[in-house]
Amino acid sequence: MSERLTVELGDRSYPIVIGSGLLRGGFELSDYLSDNDCLLVTNDTVGPLYRDALDLILPEKFAPSVVLADGEAHKTLESVSTILDALVDARATRDTTVIALGGGVVGDMAGFAAASYMRGVGFIQVPTTLLAQVDSSVGGKTGVNHPKGKNLIGAFHQPKLVLIDTDTLSTLPERELRAGLAEVIKYGAIADIEFLSWLENNMDALLEKDADALAHAIKRSCELKAQVVAEDERESGRRAILNFGHTFGHAIEHCLGYGEWLHGEAVAAGMVMAAELSRLPVDQTSRLSGLITRAGLPTAPPAVGGERMIEAMSLDKKARRKSLRFVLLRQLGEAFLTSDYDEPTLVNICSTADR
Amino acid sequence: MSERLTVELGDRSYPIVIGSGLLRGGFELSDYLSDNDCLLVTNDTVGPLYRDALDLILPEKFAPSVVLADGEAHKTLESVSTILDALVDARATRDTTVIALGGGVVGDMAGFAAASYMRGVGFIQVPTTLLAQVDSSVGGKTGVNHPKGKNLIGAFHQPKLVLIDTDTLSTLPERELRAGLAEVIKYGAIADIEFLSWLENNMDALLEKDADALAHAIKRSCELKAQVVAEDERESGRRAILNFGHTFGHAIEHCLGYGEWLHGEAVAAGMVMAAELSRLPVDQTSRLSGLITRAGLPTAPPAVGGERMIEAMSLDKKARRKSLRFVLLRQLGEAFLTSDYDEPTLVNICSTADR
Repeated sequence: MSERLTVELGDRSYPIVIGSGLLRGGFELSDYLSDNDCLLVTNDTVGPLYRDALDLILPEKFAPSVVLADGEAHKTLESVSTILDALVDARATRDTTVIALGGGVVGDMAGFAAASYMRGVGFIQVPTTLLAQVDSSVGGKTGVNHPKGKNLIGAFHQPKLVLIDTDTLSTLPERELRAGLAEVIKYGAIADIEFLSWLENNMDALLEKDADALAHAIKRSCELKAQVVAEDERESGRRAILNFGHTFGHAIEHCLGYGEWLHGEAVAAGMVMAAELSRLPVDQTSRLSGLITRAGLPTAPPAVGGERMIEAMSLDKKARRKSLRFVLLRQLGEAFLTSDYDEPTLVNICSTADR
Repeated sequence: MSERLTVELGDRSYPIVIGSGLLRGGFELSDYLSDNDCLLVTNDTVGPLYRDALDLILPEKFAPSVVLADGEAHKTLESVSTILDALVDARATRDTTVIALGGGVVGDMAGFAAASYMRGVGFIQVPTTLLAQVDSSVGGKTGVNHPKGKNLIGAFHQPKLVLIDTDTLSTLPERELRAGLAEVIKYGAIADIEFLSWLENNMDALLEKDADALAHAIKRSCELKAQVVAEDERESGRRAILNFGHTFGHAIEHCLGYGEWLHGEAVAAGMVMAAELSRLPVDQTSRLSGLITRAGLPTAPPAVGGERMIEAMSLDKKARRKSLRFVLLRQLGEAFLTSDYDEPTLVNICSTADR
């Protein structure tokens, strides 16, 4: 039982398959491999949980694999180098496919390694966290962090398949589930007010990991993201709206040190800050922050200092021509990118990090 | 006084400008920069020679720069990381352009850094060696070596301009000039028998650095390469013919250690080996090796051992589906890619490395 969406990108189009039991024999992965030649990349948390399951659908039980240390702190060029070494050791060719089994960190690094090995080999995403399923596994952004900025190094490299087995969420820690919901809420806030209402009505079911509710939330999120990516693959314009809350969020992660707050937690607080910078009517901002609160997520930054946050934002890759740009909301459900924002309001919002 | 070719790649098309005096005020570089925002990458040999000249046409005299150690041995992911650090330190944005001033090693690394910084920023090639002018600066291949194989890590990232000042060849060491001629000869061998004849008639002038002869050789080489690249940017087919002699050549470089022989020297010997594997009529093979000898280049591999060479070739990135492919000649001036070669002949040819 599975559903299938397509990310429409011409000759780089690819399917997103969403369903239950896909990793336990419910999917024919070898249809997407050339010569059954693949390298599995996972981490030391997810690998032990799902490696056996994936073996069921991998063509050769003992496909070579790389097991990375879990966590955003390890999303570095050094880890990518480890994957590249493994590809060389496995004598991978241009026909080899890199399979990422894990969360966004694993997917970002495996994807960048796939983009860089022999200047690009095939890549399959098997995301096992809600965050990766609704966001990072779709759209072809890959990369690693630089000590001075998040995702500063990377490539656009589209996968040839995104395989989402919703069963993997059963073992997902609650904190990570909540973090993933931040990105789900984001799609409602930037592009679909009806979906936002649906989330308000179904937040309890989502937090209880109700299978149907999760499947719907994932599918709708992927649909919305796929539409935006199809319009603007390389983020020269509209795609930037997917970064709603992220300029603030990245600054939070940078100031705290990567991995202290989860990405989704930083984005949650960042979305409220961005809504405030949008100077929406108060009821709309509180509707958004209310939903974020119900998801158990923060609505304000940690005490990292407002000036440090602003300093960090100017390093954020969304900053163009050395002046800041923000994704703001015209109203809930409609986002736009602008460099026309109110500076005193920004300083004021960031000062909430002075506590 | 300059000539201009275009590499036709749709919205990624770009000019190759060839001429004398371009770096000493003869070219308006800022037309190709956004906001005059750039980072210069060079090495400790070329930098001191041309940095002052380039300053004349750079919009800001003190554009930030990275000076790398000279040589193929430094073509590593670590050096690319140094460039990425410099981009971060310069607070480079998506509008920043990376300018590579130097030979192929500088261009390959600066290009890969440009491809990877913020998932891709602009890039300009200012090649200062003959090899880089006729080959590596054109076509968008960027990358670094892995300890186990040459150019295993990289990206396709087209420059927005290739600026070739033939005056830079006046300071080029003779050994490097000869190495560059190997690639020039290659174009004749794979695609243009008339050009091969021209080279036979003008080899002495080229070795004496006759300006007109060099300009013609560079222009014709770039034309031939641009045609092949326009047909097959990502090397899914025809572009592979540009690798004539390179499978053997890379194996030589790998077995000797990068930097021991120059790339062009290894390719020169590799071309003769590939011609032998092509089992051309003897007069054609000796015509090619005769021209290579006149260019002062080797026609046989060094004593690295035949078995080691074959082992090294199976790691070469041109090896597909774990069986070797070679670019062979139907006749002088006409190359093709094949996995259908005579194995005993290959073993026999490689055994010349057993001495």
